[in-house]
Amino acid sequence: VISSAANPRVKLVRKLESRRQRDKLGLFACEGEDLVAAGLDAGLQPVEALVDADRPALLERLPQAETVAPELMASLSTLPHPARVVAVFRRADLPQLAEAPVGLALWRVSDPGNVGTLLRAADALGPAFALLSSGCADPTGPKALRASAGAVFRVPLGAFEAGEGFVRIALAPRDGVPLPELELPERVIFVLGAEREGLPDEVLAAADAVASIPQAGRAESLNVATAGAIALYEWRRGRGAWT
Amino acid sequence: VISSAANPRVKLVRKLESRRQRDKLGLFACEGEDLVAAGLDAGLQPVEALVDADRPALLERLPQAETVAPELMASLSTLPHPARVVAVFRRADLPQLAEAPVGLALWRVSDPGNVGTLLRAADALGPAFALLSSGCADPTGPKALRASAGAVFRVPLGAFEAGEGFVRIALAPRDGVPLPELELPERVIFVLGAEREGLPDEVLAAADAVASIPQAGRAESLNVATAGAIALYEWRRGRGAWT
Repeated sequence: VISSAANPRVKLVRKLESRRQRDKLGLFACEGEDLVAAGLDAGLQPVEALVDADRPALLERLPQAETVAPELMASLSTLPHPARVVAVFRRADLPQLAEAPVGLALWRVSDPGNVGTLLRAADALGPAFALLSSGCADPTGPKALRASAGAVFRVPLGAFEAGEGFVRIALAPRDGVPLPELELPERVIFVLGAEREGLPDEVLAAADAVASIPQAGRAESLNVATAGAIALYEWRRGRGAWT
Repeated sequence: VISSAANPRVKLVRKLESRRQRDKLGLFACEGEDLVAAGLDAGLQPVEALVDADRPALLERLPQAETVAPELMASLSTLPHPARVVAVFRRADLPQLAEAPVGLALWRVSDPGNVGTLLRAADALGPAFALLSSGCADPTGPKALRASAGAVFRVPLGAFEAGEGFVRIALAPRDGVPLPELELPERVIFVLGAEREGLPDEVLAAADAVASIPQAGRAESLNVATAGAIALYEWRRGRGAWT
């Protein structure tokens, strides 16, 4: 049973709280049975796994797991209720850009909850891929992982500029073609902007079309995660993809 | 310039960080120019207002505001970047249940970000009212206020059981009528369940219909705020309410 904070496995998990370290090492830590199981279900092999000595979880699926003293486990947690299991995965093992007929391209979406929620919607309403610009929140950070509900292990990720041959439809809060009136093509990417600033002019200009979700007059705008989910829903609707 | 943490106005704002105190006093505190302006725009009169002495904001609209020393203002903030203005409003001044043809009923939605995001969607895609069960996050808590982007000042609130004469459609992750195939009536309430548990059997049984948003096979389910927004979008779509 690991009981020292100086243990190298424990230190690695703590290090991965920092995005800089995740970028440098190409690793990320997942807390909790649901998330870790989602990673295993997707076929990822953890680099390491730690389980609470008093409340072990997923042991049968994590033969290499080391047990950790409960207090130490609690000190590692970013959650109000400490997780029973933490596993470290490789970013390079996440799904790479694959053939899917629809995707989301996120421009500087900096809130990790929004990035995670958009991945969750891409998984549920696509399956879609997701393209992230620089300035987006790290999809492998703790809040984004949690909001994704495991979708990060299933949604292929790529760079913002990827997706050649797809029609790019930018979503703007107003003045675009009403989304329900747009004839959505077969292969489409919906481009979504930053929480406050939206999409800059050059990104809007580079899109093949600009669409808006019709809104009641007084509201400021929809949350970016809501807008992305509605766009995917509309796309599925147009395909008659109700299976 | 207020510089003492013992000042009664400062103490009141700090007290209102606690839901128990908000419930007891019937007051809540709003941080930041956008939220406070949304309250003023909705016609609410603040009980008190504090502005940063070095970076005052909204002074022309808050003649009664007191200036506060910047360090003290920063210590009051729940945000990474302290707000320039904080105002305290009365819950009783928030919009009460009004005539709107559509609403959301939230069953034990305990995440304040989800409650706020749902109010934002109700404002943008309705305008709709919102009915909250016990066990829901406080819509006047700091995280819900922020996620609502001011919608809390515009969306009428009521008890979960309210809304007589409305058709209640429960949303379940699966096994319901596909939402796009449902003929949505004129006056409808969408019933949404808790983040993990969903809706209990008795609430499902009490609904007039159960609908599901069709999803790709492998995903667990949509986030509750996403599901509520899609339901409102679908309702507006059926009305041809693209204005």
